[in-house]
Amino acid sequence: MSRIAPLSGFPEWSPEERVVERHVISELSDEFALHGFAEIATRAVEPLSRLTGDAEANKEVYALTRAADTGAAAELGLRFDLTVPFARYVEERQGSLQFPFRRYQVQPVWRGERPQAGRFREFCQADIDIVARGELPAHLEAEVAIVMARALGRLPLPGIRMRVNDRRLVEGFYRGVGIADVPAALRSVDKLAKITPIGVHAELAKQGIGDEARKAIIEFAEIRAFGPGPGPGPGPKSTPGLEVGLSPKGGTDWAERAETLWRESGATGDEARALFEAGLASLSTLVDAINGAVPGVAAADLSIARGLDYYTGAVYETTVMGHEDLGSICSGGRYDSLVAGGGFPGVGMSVGVSRLVSRLLSAGLATATRATPSMVLVAVADEESRSRSEDIAHRLRKRGVACEVAPQAAKFGKQIQYAERRGIPFVWFPGDGSDGEVKDIRSGEQRPEDVNTWKFPKEDASPRVVPGPQSGA
Amino acid sequence: MSRIAPLSGFPEWSPEERVVERHVISELSDEFALHGFAEIATRAVEPLSRLTGDAEANKEVYALTRAADTGAAAELGLRFDLTVPFARYVEERQGSLQFPFRRYQVQPVWRGERPQAGRFREFCQADIDIVARGELPAHLEAEVAIVMARALGRLPLPGIRMRVNDRRLVEGFYRGVGIADVPAALRSVDKLAKITPIGVHAELAKQGIGDEARKAIIEFAEIRAFGPGPGPGPGPKSTPGLEVGLSPKGGTDWAERAETLWRESGATGDEARALFEAGLASLSTLVDAINGAVPGVAAADLSIARGLDYYTGAVYETTVMGHEDLGSICSGGRYDSLVAGGGFPGVGMSVGVSRLVSRLLSAGLATATRATPSMVLVAVADEESRSRSEDIAHRLRKRGVACEVAPQAAKFGKQIQYAERRGIPFVWFPGDGSDGEVKDIRSGEQRPEDVNTWKFPKEDASPRVVPGPQSGA
Repeated sequence: MSRIAPLSGFPEWSPEERVVERHVISELSDEFALHGFAEIATRAVEPLSRLTGDAEANKEVYALTRAADTGAAAELGLRFDLTVPFARYVEERQGSLQFPFRRYQVQPVWRGERPQAGRFREFCQADIDIVARGELPAHLEAEVAIVMARALGRLPLPGIRMRVNDRRLVEGFYRGVGIADVPAALRSVDKLAKITPIGVHAELAKQGIGDEARKAIIEFAEIRAFGPGPGPGPGPKSTPGLEVGLSPKGGTDWAERAETLWRESGATGDEARALFEAGLASLSTLVDAINGAVPGVAAADLSIARGLDYYTGAVYETTVMGHEDLGSICSGGRYDSLVAGGGFPGVGMSVGVSRLVSRLLSAGLATATRATPSMVLVAVADEESRSRSEDIAHRLRKRGVACEVAPQAAKFGKQIQYAERRGIPFVWFPGDGSDGEVKDIRSGEQRPEDVNTWKFPKEDASPRVVPGPQSGA
Repeated sequence: MSRIAPLSGFPEWSPEERVVERHVISELSDEFALHGFAEIATRAVEPLSRLTGDAEANKEVYALTRAADTGAAAELGLRFDLTVPFARYVEERQGSLQFPFRRYQVQPVWRGERPQAGRFREFCQADIDIVARGELPAHLEAEVAIVMARALGRLPLPGIRMRVNDRRLVEGFYRGVGIADVPAALRSVDKLAKITPIGVHAELAKQGIGDEARKAIIEFAEIRAFGPGPGPGPGPKSTPGLEVGLSPKGGTDWAERAETLWRESGATGDEARALFEAGLASLSTLVDAINGAVPGVAAADLSIARGLDYYTGAVYETTVMGHEDLGSICSGGRYDSLVAGGGFPGVGMSVGVSRLVSRLLSAGLATATRATPSMVLVAVADEESRSRSEDIAHRLRKRGVACEVAPQAAKFGKQIQYAERRGIPFVWFPGDGSDGEVKDIRSGEQRPEDVNTWKFPKEDASPRVVPGPQSGA
């Protein structure tokens, strides 16, 4: 029994669970690398002043002080995302990096949130970004989403849905119907799933937005080709309203619906219209491009309001089918400038690795076939012949076979048990004057083998990730 | 030009340098896994009370406070090594882990040291440990050292030397010559390289140790089969004294010398003698076992005093040949109990990854052939035909070829330059009605190829780590 209580909000995996996490990270990383993204790692620490600029993040930042310096003002803090350090990295190295710079980064971040179910205070993120020095071509908005869809497609998930919106489309429409403070209105619309359209209506009314305009932007937010997305709450909440274009193939009925709404709501203004049109065209192209590469994965969702104060073009959210209650497991968008001084437009997305792994494990979507890398346990007949066993093990390793030698020359039954408890599939019994025999402890089959010619099942070489005990598979 | 000053003590690598660090980590990890070590990762954070128990580490620990909670007493801190969290991990999971438990762990640690050259405040360590529940067999002391020697042997280092000592041997000898406070004497002997034998003599005299005994333990510490090891200072300091057994094959002249010294110094006491003999026998077996597996890598060095307050059997230090000024890059030993309450004897070693990578880079021992994973840049003739290029790229990726599509349909010369600046070795020019042609931009050779049959040089598939520009190679 443990005498130590786990720290709430700081998830830690058992060796078996860690195999699943590593699998997730390595599948994502492999796909990112296949698309030419270079991996970087940044320090965990930033000057506190760079971290606490944003009021919302402010309270959550962990500040660091040396235990010896109690009372001294903290100057450093732990990163709360991978964007702030990446922006600094690019700014520092702008003279030597090659632009457009494609990078991925898989590292932990920390947020001092009040402990509550499902909220992590330390968690791993996997980010990709493409940043340019001058102009950022629009096709990179599609590329980033396609890379992510392919990367997530490698994981043992029931399927993913990527919801896409465009800042210009939303801003054009909002301005067209006469909204003055677009960000404030967006903050209310963002609560649609949480406080229902009635609640949003009330909030918008308080902002002085007229009845017609309120109705228009709520109807606008209900244009979702996949139907309503997840709310921030504990379950998928359906909001009443229009659900059009449910075909997973995408299609353009959502665009027609937006156009109709523009007309019906009496939206006006040349600038607003230009923004609206640019956003509509861009979003159509984007959805088609993503679905062209990964059929049926993407759809327009004009309800996405999160991040629209920061993003300037495409905005993405991604949910796992059947696990919409998790919320978005991969979000991002296009931005005009990565660094505070301006410049470096880019587009990026971020996967919540810890949250995803946590669900893979708890929902039984994934488990590891074993915790140890060893495929073979080399048995030891007696301590005098240990070196013979070590020699077999060494020759197996030269063939790339992970193995370990039994720590004690116990009875063979006990050594087989040792392997069994660890899920090691084979026990090798060294022979006199020969390499001896190999037992597959799953089938019980045992036969003479030579280390150099032994044909082992490739799928046993490393721990594999398979559906877990709770899954239906 | 950067407007941001790097934080002293927080190393961060360029994309090229990070390729080297990843290479180091993956080579070490692969060798650990081949020997059946399971990877675990622990949270960065521990309750502060668990971290500040040790007075020396105390001052260096970074305490965490939420930025919103200024003034509140810190309850959490960042780990300063991987042993404290590992001990807690084992204690928490003792009911489910399989013992002996073999684990490796590669993660950053933090120490709030005063910034000075070569001192990192955030750095990566790679640890292996084998912990048992009951007794820990002696052969595991050799195994851990052999695994490390093999793992380090994969790295682009000029060679390594592993110095080994044994706590019982030292304690037996010290007690035999009448030292009462062995740890205090060891702390002084540990400064041999720094303050010279004269300085150590003076310190020992202050501890009330007589002339004969002082002479004996200093002579004892000068028994080093490899000659003097590195001091903690900025360069390899040679201390005058005996240097015996310089043969890299090991041999037992160091053991004979120790025996002679026992007799000549008039050491006495049955208990002391028993400890001395057990340590001597164990160390002889250990050195022979390591050299049997990795010839010439190990030697006894009776000067090693660091960690002897904690370790109870073997103690290891490892230096890079020609880079002795770096100090030990991989240290460890055998301990009686991993957890505070007792129990879980184990043996482990820890590699200072950041220090090692820093030297590999600065000494020109290693550099990456390129920063990007892309082996191929697929050119784009004009924006209308971008999808043709995307298609070529997609088919290349299906063959496992990392590639990217040119971000802009610039002149081909510019696109070739784009690849050149990134070290991407091949540019693919899609054709009309065929897959087109591939140019090796190093040789300038260009010829028609089919994506499915193209034979690419395997060594170009990923960035490789090769000797750097400053190396003599």
